[in-house]
Amino acid sequence: MPTKTIFVKPIIKEVLLIPQEIIRKKRNGHPLSEQELSAFVSGLVTGKIPDYQVSALLMAIYFQGMSPVETSFLLKAMMESGIRFDWKTKEAGSKIFVDKHSTGGVGDKTSLIILPLLIAEGLNVPMIAGRGLGHTGGTLDKLESIPGVSTQLSPETFTQQVLTIGGAFGAQTLEFVPADKKLYALRDVTSTVESIPLIVASIMSKKLGEGIGALVLDVKFGSGSFMGSLDRAEELGKAMKAVGMASGCLVEVALTSMNQPLGRTAGHTLEVLECIEIMEGKNTSQDTKELSLQLAARLACLARKQSDAAEFQKTYERMNRSLEDGTALEIFHKVLVKQGAQSQSLKLVDRSWIDGETQKFPVFAKTKGKIQSIETRNLGLALLELGGGRKKTDDKINPCVGLSQILKIGEATDSSQPLCFVNAATEADFESVRDKIVDAFFVVDEKVNVKCEDLIHSWL
Amino acid sequence: MPTKTIFVKPIIKEVLLIPQEIIRKKRNGHPLSEQELSAFVSGLVTGKIPDYQVSALLMAIYFQGMSPVETSFLLKAMMESGIRFDWKTKEAGSKIFVDKHSTGGVGDKTSLIILPLLIAEGLNVPMIAGRGLGHTGGTLDKLESIPGVSTQLSPETFTQQVLTIGGAFGAQTLEFVPADKKLYALRDVTSTVESIPLIVASIMSKKLGEGIGALVLDVKFGSGSFMGSLDRAEELGKAMKAVGMASGCLVEVALTSMNQPLGRTAGHTLEVLECIEIMEGKNTSQDTKELSLQLAARLACLARKQSDAAEFQKTYERMNRSLEDGTALEIFHKVLVKQGAQSQSLKLVDRSWIDGETQKFPVFAKTKGKIQSIETRNLGLALLELGGGRKKTDDKINPCVGLSQILKIGEATDSSQPLCFVNAATEADFESVRDKIVDAFFVVDEKVNVKCEDLIHSWL
Repeated sequence: MPTKTIFVKPIIKEVLLIPQEIIRKKRNGHPLSEQELSAFVSGLVTGKIPDYQVSALLMAIYFQGMSPVETSFLLKAMMESGIRFDWKTKEAGSKIFVDKHSTGGVGDKTSLIILPLLIAEGLNVPMIAGRGLGHTGGTLDKLESIPGVSTQLSPETFTQQVLTIGGAFGAQTLEFVPADKKLYALRDVTSTVESIPLIVASIMSKKLGEGIGALVLDVKFGSGSFMGSLDRAEELGKAMKAVGMASGCLVEVALTSMNQPLGRTAGHTLEVLECIEIMEGKNTSQDTKELSLQLAARLACLARKQSDAAEFQKTYERMNRSLEDGTALEIFHKVLVKQGAQSQSLKLVDRSWIDGETQKFPVFAKTKGKIQSIETRNLGLALLELGGGRKKTDDKINPCVGLSQILKIGEATDSSQPLCFVNAATEADFESVRDKIVDAFFVVDEKVNVKCEDLIHSWL
Repeated sequence: MPTKTIFVKPIIKEVLLIPQEIIRKKRNGHPLSEQELSAFVSGLVTGKIPDYQVSALLMAIYFQGMSPVETSFLLKAMMESGIRFDWKTKEAGSKIFVDKHSTGGVGDKTSLIILPLLIAEGLNVPMIAGRGLGHTGGTLDKLESIPGVSTQLSPETFTQQVLTIGGAFGAQTLEFVPADKKLYALRDVTSTVESIPLIVASIMSKKLGEGIGALVLDVKFGSGSFMGSLDRAEELGKAMKAVGMASGCLVEVALTSMNQPLGRTAGHTLEVLECIEIMEGKNTSQDTKELSLQLAARLACLARKQSDAAEFQKTYERMNRSLEDGTALEIFHKVLVKQGAQSQSLKLVDRSWIDGETQKFPVFAKTKGKIQSIETRNLGLALLELGGGRKKTDDKINPCVGLSQILKIGEATDSSQPLCFVNAATEADFESVRDKIVDAFFVVDEKVNVKCEDLIHSWL
């Protein structure tokens, strides 16, 4: 029998440039090379690879997954698809650049507090944050509910602000990781959002594109989170940490509970107010305050490579003082005035923007008792239906609607203590979500022993 | 604990109209409803559902499969996406309409012989055939290698020709099953061709759209087939038979070997000539002749609901006579002259079109011996590289290049008996494929016992 010529090599070499062959390779469960992933990302951004091939690859990735190495290749290609920040080349000197990112949830508002806390510590925070979608809110939308505030900063303005006052809340501009914007839009309409390697590449391409040296990730699990189970959250957290560390960025991951809303409010202006109150030293929202301090102190220590408990404790206490003595609030004002806020709006001289044209209604449980658990996602969906969220990325938001004085797990409700209050544009709007809210709270007899889990489950 | 409202029903009702929710459902392995599949097909054809959502659904179907019921829904929606033929409403009277379809291979040319054989039997054959792609050839391309012949018949012309002379070779026009054209184009560039339910829906939407009452499917397996293994071929054959029968069309399926080319030629004009020779009563290509007779006789009996062996034998013999006495050739001429052929071209008075501007080269094996097996797909790929096939659907074909006098398994080769001859446009073209062809034949010592499988493995 004559020796057979081996055709595999030249065929592969040739077809690697053909998008459908890259799709086929992933479809068949084979890892993609840096060159292939980079070709796909470039093709996506330049339009040379049409969306229908990109979406087929996304679905194949959904089913076949990607190794950490592939994920690193993908995020690198995404990060390099646009401009990115490199503070080493600027007048930054020995400054340390850091950021915190959360996978999102209901009432998750810690970024508003953490950025000032970090600046107060002398750290620099080039925070490119996101907008809300579905049942979760977004940092940028919350900030933009403050009259005058804009997060649409040009790269030049953003850089300048970070270098002069230590931080900025920026939106993802068209120039910054454009591949992510396009990919996310496609994933959203092709049901390929829930893929861990794609989530990792999306988040980490933007965080690493900020040029930071240390990052704390707040990965949420539970009924109000995107990831749902603790296992999935842990998987995502580990994957993000792995690719971040491999890229030379220090990363720590907190797995935190979203089995109830964070704090006592959900809704844009209501959440801003809650944050301002914390920065005024008030003790109205202990869990929000505590999580903000934990994440911020951990990040500061990580960035300064301080690993002992005593240093952490000192940092935590310094930060706590900065909330109580008004330092953090002063910085928050400074950052937002720089981004267009009117000073008196922020100082709450004129508070009309906080409530807008809404009416406030109490929501009572059907029976008296104690909150045992909360279907947190349904509270987020109720907020969405009130107009305080986006079903599609171009939906308009009513920033003033929302939930406040939300009861926490273990707290008691009766005919004089509502589950929460609702700010709605009309009574009809309120009526349309009332049952959903009532049913989201599981109320048990006062005598039942309710186990309340830790807000921070663990650190990775 | 209060009773929880069940939100599932209204949510599903609402989201079913959203394409990404249909994609998500299939992605998660749930069956799609008739309404959902029909919405997707309509959206594809009208452009209301963009290609990137269609391709994501195709990839999800690739991974999750579809039940026979879903496949029936899909093919019905595809069939109803354009015009289709319904002979009951026409001046067809009691005429019987039938067709044969093959999944394709190298040298597979039986349609050219079977259509005249069926017409000679008084049956009517509205054959909408395909073009070649990749390593396999297509009936339409073969016919259009004959000067003047066109298969681009309008539905009116096609119908008229079938009703007046008993049959036509038609191309899939823009009006006929447009969903299939669009879907196939997308599948081709998103690596979602190899999905059995999608293949079934593609083939059967067109065959059932012809309005036929009986269909014989020739499903190829082996090294030169699309399906590869006998198991996959059987799976496809059973699936096609099931959906065909469920739609009221009688279907039989032959599983036939493509472990060697069918007949002695591969290439457009060469294959037409081989068919003409069979219809001239020559015995130069026994396997092509035998398979054509078997498929045609089986189909005629199926259409007339004659199931006993004696009837089959009579039909087979009548058809064999029709090849030997020139009846089939006369009908073939008549059909093609109707479709634009010049009479003298077909009668081989002027044979210049058959060879075109090619040169003919013998291909010799490296050692003398006996053919044990053939990498048939590589012969198809060699033909493709010679210019006798399409890599993309809009590639031009050189109809005159090809392989002839191909040795069959079990036959002997030596320094005076080539493996085959090659018609190439240039000597350089020939040289570029020579090794591929030589290596496609496994030559063993004369004394080795070579098992030659049956051409027709079985009927389903």
